[in-house]
Amino acid sequence: MCLDKLVSLMEKQGFNGALVSPGSNLYYLTGLHIHEAGERLTVLAVNSDGEYHLLAPSLYGNVIEDFPVTFWRDGENPYGKLGGILRELDITSGRLLVENTMRADWLIGIEKLLRDHDLHPLSSLMRELRMRKDREEIRLMEKAAQVVDDVFEEILAMNLIGMSERELALKIELMIRERSDGISFEPIVASGENGANPHHAPGERKLKKGDLVILDYGAKWESYCSDITRTIALGKPDEKLLEIYEVVKNAQESAFQTVREGITAREVDKAAREYIAKAGYSKYFTHRTGHGLGLDVHEEPYIGPDGELVLENGMTFTIEPGIYLPGLGGVRIEDDVMVENGRGERLTKAERELIQL
Amino acid sequence: MCLDKLVSLMEKQGFNGALVSPGSNLYYLTGLHIHEAGERLTVLAVNSDGEYHLLAPSLYGNVIEDFPVTFWRDGENPYGKLGGILRELDITSGRLLVENTMRADWLIGIEKLLRDHDLHPLSSLMRELRMRKDREEIRLMEKAAQVVDDVFEEILAMNLIGMSERELALKIELMIRERSDGISFEPIVASGENGANPHHAPGERKLKKGDLVILDYGAKWESYCSDITRTIALGKPDEKLLEIYEVVKNAQESAFQTVREGITAREVDKAAREYIAKAGYSKYFTHRTGHGLGLDVHEEPYIGPDGELVLENGMTFTIEPGIYLPGLGGVRIEDDVMVENGRGERLTKAERELIQL
Repeated sequence: MCLDKLVSLMEKQGFNGALVSPGSNLYYLTGLHIHEAGERLTVLAVNSDGEYHLLAPSLYGNVIEDFPVTFWRDGENPYGKLGGILRELDITSGRLLVENTMRADWLIGIEKLLRDHDLHPLSSLMRELRMRKDREEIRLMEKAAQVVDDVFEEILAMNLIGMSERELALKIELMIRERSDGISFEPIVASGENGANPHHAPGERKLKKGDLVILDYGAKWESYCSDITRTIALGKPDEKLLEIYEVVKNAQESAFQTVREGITAREVDKAAREYIAKAGYSKYFTHRTGHGLGLDVHEEPYIGPDGELVLENGMTFTIEPGIYLPGLGGVRIEDDVMVENGRGERLTKAERELIQL
Repeated sequence: MCLDKLVSLMEKQGFNGALVSPGSNLYYLTGLHIHEAGERLTVLAVNSDGEYHLLAPSLYGNVIEDFPVTFWRDGENPYGKLGGILRELDITSGRLLVENTMRADWLIGIEKLLRDHDLHPLSSLMRELRMRKDREEIRLMEKAAQVVDDVFEEILAMNLIGMSERELALKIELMIRERSDGISFEPIVASGENGANPHHAPGERKLKKGDLVILDYGAKWESYCSDITRTIALGKPDEKLLEIYEVVKNAQESAFQTVREGITAREVDKAAREYIAKAGYSKYFTHRTGHGLGLDVHEEPYIGPDGELVLENGMTFTIEPGIYLPGLGGVRIEDDVMVENGRGERLTKAERELIQL
């Protein structure tokens, strides 16, 4: 169990406790799949001696087995029980780690159980454990990447003109579900001028001739994620859009070619950013170049202007520069990349040249 | 804009500021639909003079219009900018409200920007604004409830034997999406012995003769949720299961009949709980009787043994007792209920007698 690895890092870095709420870290550390806990307090407490105990709602009573757990029932105050666990583990004060995605109302409740304390995001240690993928993890990520490549082929075979963004997004989701353990996030289909919004929610706009269409979607394979973006053309788009397509494609390739063991993540970001800046579109590239990928669809190492992490073999992340022109449209091209034998290797391999349907 | 109402409550109750992260409260207060912010700091700060300012990632730059906003770019430290906003609004100390679902890493970062402070969950005020629905909100919830009733009819017309839980869950999801703005949560299909887990994730088990099957699903209509559970029989199930079906059905009816203006939520819970206890199944009813329903699928008023809120006209919540027998199966029956003219009224109206297919 990976909990041991966390404990040894905690000891080394002088943390006396960790508080883990449901999510990918809890799964990584314990193998427990706890979903839908929602607002019901669910916390794994761990101390630097390697002792641990879970507090969980009683409706998981028939599911959690062979694990040190205390259940609380709806109507009980769970913080009383959690306080007991924290005292038992002797982690009511000191340097404590907290799961990054824990709900604020839980943290406010937990802070009342603590004396002098100094809280730190759990990700600072978890990234050490999770960001270098082993062979088996890479194998699962390759599977997840193969799924999104295959789905791209299927999309190209469809009759897209006249279909709404929402319809296409649903079709993409169903194709992913059929081939994998599910989507890693809600597919984005952003057509025409909607392409200017990097996180556009697919709507009723119908795809039409002259559109560039951004397709951004991902699959899960045994909990590991893929995440791809391709931008395709329906008929002949505006010259300006064709121009930015080439800029984004080359910026993405430039960033990819930069990847190597021993450089910082920000070097990869810089390669894409400088290429786009030279082409004169600096202010239209409004996000970082990429993000780590694994059990979470966004995790360390982040590939941005502040990316201080040094790239190592086994790291997996996206490279996805984009240019977004308000009123006109946008282009983004994204691949999943791993560092292997010192260099970058693409996990997603779908065509990157502009496809005009 | 409902922000004014929050400000006047803040003033009345002596709060000097509120920090709202993306979610249903941000939508309710401002009408802004911000999804997928993920790990990127996004906070609306409000003070008790009614001044407010949003901090958002620059990738929303082409979306947020006519709203006081400061954007930060990937690579910048957003907490510096948020600190400026908090100082400008004079809310760096004192009694502050925090969105319940805000990520812990954001709250840890924000606490470093604050001097003496006393943090409280935002829900304590928001529930005052949100838990009594007006006519228009009720109309939307009726629409969402009609959708899940209709989908239940469709399910009954299907050939269920041999279908896997996962297949049926997907079919239910697609039927909901076709008729509404989407699902309010991932449908639960729990068949046979899997019914003993109240939050079972649909799997590969195939539905077969003799099963009880728990179906728990919901729709959204213009952001408002419905949430229904029905338990159906395929052929003739075990006598014990037939017995608990009757117990749960009567417990649900008893709780429903208890609903009236002026009583506390716990009275409704008590009616279901006592009925189940008298039948000898007390320890197999492992959750509260229900939860409020509206923009969120779980919100105030919670209907549990600790439910201190007094029911009023316009409140909407579920009534969903269940009995879960490890190794054998389970039964849950859930309706959406509103308080109207002093009494309970069901929004979901699907058949509650046991249907044997």
